[in-house]
This record gives sequence, C-alpha cells and structure tokens, in this order.
Amino acid sequence: MELFLLSNGKLPDEAELLGYAKSRLLAMIERRGVKSAVFIPYAMLRNDYDQRAQELAQTLGIEVASIHHAASPAAAIAEAECILVSGGNTWMLNQMLHEQGLIVPIQRAVRERGVPYVGWSAGCNVATPSIRTTNDMPVRCSVVLPALGLFPVQINPHYIDAHISGHMGETRDERLAEFCVVNPSESVVALREGSLLHVEGDELSYFSARQQGFKVFRHGEETREYQDTRALAALVPFICR
Amino acid sequence: MELFLLSNGKLPDEAELLGYAKSRLLAMIERRGVKSAVFIPYAMLRNDYDQRAQELAQTLGIEVASIHHAASPAAAIAEAECILVSGGNTWMLNQMLHEQGLIVPIQRAVRERGVPYVGWSAGCNVATPSIRTTNDMPVRCSVVLPALGLFPVQINPHYIDAHISGHMGETRDERLAEFCVVNPSESVVALREGSLLHVEGDELSYFSARQQGFKVFRHGEETREYQDTRALAALVPFICR
Repeated sequence: MELFLLSNGKLPDEAELLGYAKSRLLAMIERRGVKSAVFIPYAMLRNDYDQRAQELAQTLGIEVASIHHAASPAAAIAEAECILVSGGNTWMLNQMLHEQGLIVPIQRAVRERGVPYVGWSAGCNVATPSIRTTNDMPVRCSVVLPALGLFPVQINPHYIDAHISGHMGETRDERLAEFCVVNPSESVVALREGSLLHVEGDELSYFSARQQGFKVFRHGEETREYQDTRALAALVPFICR
Repeated sequence: MELFLLSNGKLPDEAELLGYAKSRLLAMIERRGVKSAVFIPYAMLRNDYDQRAQELAQTLGIEVASIHHAASPAAAIAEAECILVSGGNTWMLNQMLHEQGLIVPIQRAVRERGVPYVGWSAGCNVATPSIRTTNDMPVRCSVVLPALGLFPVQINPHYIDAHISGHMGETRDERLAEFCVVNPSESVVALREGSLLHVEGDELSYFSARQQGFKVFRHGEETREYQDTRALAALVPFICR
C-alpha cells in the first residue's frame, strides 16, 4: 500500500499545486513506472475539473483523467495506475464516493493492487476512518461520515494553532479536544500546512516543507509535537521510520 | 414567538456571559414577568453545566435549571417560561435535542405558548432549519442535520472575514459560497461576534454591540452587508423593522 496524505494542495508562495510534495511524487511515479492517474475532483465545487486535471498532468508528467468523464467510475478505479484526490469540500467528496459506489473499489485498488493514493486536504480526510475531523462546513442535509479508512487514524488537515484576535468561536485545539472527549479511545494526527504523511508498504514517514512537526491529540493526554513518526507506532500497524 | 439568536456568548472584553445582549434580555424578562428558565447545556463538552446555569441565573436575575437534571426533559420544556440554549459543539447539541425527544416540545413551546428562546452560537445554529452552516467539527459518526427551524433561514454564527496569514484552508466566505453552490435556493445570514437577531411577534430587529452589519450570502448574488433587517424581508415571513 502506498499513500501520500497531504495537509493541503498549495503553499502561499507556490505557483504549482502539490509543489511542496512534487519531488516525492515524481520519485514514486518513476519508481513505479506510473504513466497515468485517475483524478477524483468531487470536493471541488467551484472549479473546472478538466483544467485542474490538466494542471496535475503538467506537474506530474503523466496523463490525468478526471473520473467525472468515466462511463463507469468504478471501472476507472479498477484500471487506475494511480489515484489523485483533490481538496475542496470534504462532505461533498465523501458523499460522492459513497453515491458513486467508489468506496470498495478504491479500497481494493489501494490494498490489493497497491495503487498509490495521493490525497490533499479533503482528499486526505477521506483516506482516514471517517470525516469527523474535517474543518469543512456540512453543506448537505444528507451526509455520510465513514470514509475510506486507508489510514487507520483520524487526520486533521490544515492544522493551525494561530487564532484571529477577537474571534470567539472555538480554536482548532478546542475543536480537536472536543473530538477527543466524544471519542476517548481515538487519536487525531494534526498536519500543518505544507506537511504530509507517506505510507509505503510497512514504512511511515513524515515531511514538512517548513520543518514543522505534527501533533497528536488524545483524550486525557497532553498534546505534543513530533517530527518522528515513531511517535505514531502505537497508533498505526506500520513500521515507522 | 420571541427569539434571541446570538452569534456568540461572550465578547473578548466581557466578563459576563450574554453581556452584550443583557439589557435586551432583561427588558424581555421584565416585560413578560419571567421568573425562571430551562437551560439546555448539551453543546458544552468540557464545562460544568450547573456552574454555567448559576452564572446565567446571576446575569439574568431569574432561576435557571439545567435540563440534564429533569426526570423528563420534554416535560421540563412543556413547563418552561424561557429556554436558554448554550454554545459549544453544535453536532452534540442537535443530536441530543433529537435523542432526548425535544425537537417538537421546543417547537410547540416557542410557537404555541410563545416561550422566549435564547440561543447563542450552537444554540443559534439549532434554531435554524438545519445545522448545515455550523463552524463546528462533526465529532460523532451518527449525526442529524435538520434542526428546530424556529427561524426560517440558515445563520452562520461567529462570522468573520479576517484570515490567518499562511493558512490555506477555505476562508469562511469560501465555505459559505460552497453552501450556496450546493443549495442555490437558500440564503445564509452571517452574524459577526457581538451581534444578534431578535424576533418578537411579527418584528425582526438586529443589534450589533460593535455597530457592524450582518451579511447575506446567496448563490449568484454579490454578498452585501446590512444594518437594517428590511434587507431580510424577502427571506423571512416577519415584518421587519
């Protein structure tokens, strides 16, 4: 299994989508001889799917086809060499994955055929057991929370501990503490902007373009910041390096 | 029907919960001769329910009983003179209202008996048709989105258009625009910190402790800021003053 779980798509100073992860993605593409990818754009509500697919094709140097053109989305996943899952609204993305019957096909592609999965922001959220740690607004009345569960721990992307002065809504830390109160047996890995987790077989590695750490939230424990994925050894059944 | 729909509970410079709305709440209490209120604390995940009820009792000069002590929560609502609904996590609050069988009792109390409803933050969200415009994290796997529908338009509390530098997650404006794309026939009223909507019979008024306006988001229309509730005349079946 190979997963690239990215906190976000773009850094403020980057022109290119996935820029901060590009060298790692190109190395994977070369190592595996990947020639094409299926792009899942359902999280994007206000952008052009084909234009985004074209951008990704240029960045990664492979063919990228948006799944919304596929006569059978499930068949497109069954034949995919690589799966790219865009950010946007996590609720819309997860709902579409369920409604289009893509949950099991993606799980089988990733787990059984070893197809690499690259997800950023919403695409990172849906790779975890559920979307309970999304930051997005639940814009639909009918929603599904269980997600792909490719990675066994909840992730909070776009993690930030800064606070806008005068804003009296909950801070991100307060929201994550609430999650832990309601789900005391679970943990949340918080990924700052410009950081990613990379699962490759039985190895889990972490990269931050800004040399920042990730945090782990757990009920009744002090939240700490780490650079080393061995801190996740008890949470994930991978060997961490 | 009388509703006080508050964006938030406290302003940064206030010691007292509901401080910025206090004079209006006291005027309502005196006008109606309210002696007691039922407090719905379910949104609060990490605070002491009774202590908060005690704070509210002191601020408002009435008896305040937290509903979690009631043998029959529905009966407590049926006898309530006033209903106070706390902020916290909207998902937990809405789920508890449904699970405790309180949706119809609160609707009947407010609509048929004219019991005043005071809700801040999460307590404001659940007064609208659904919690699709909450800012909170969906911490539970089983969730319900339809809410009390006392006020006929979605509200986004804690509205803010400031942005933390370097944060690449969606801005609030982007999230609300996504709501409007998915729900093009609906509108969202965005309430800044320290502001409230007051429904009293057939009148709708607006107050902002900071003399700021409210915004209205609607698909395909430019978002504008208003001080005058007549801007909502097409959206609400009340006469707006």
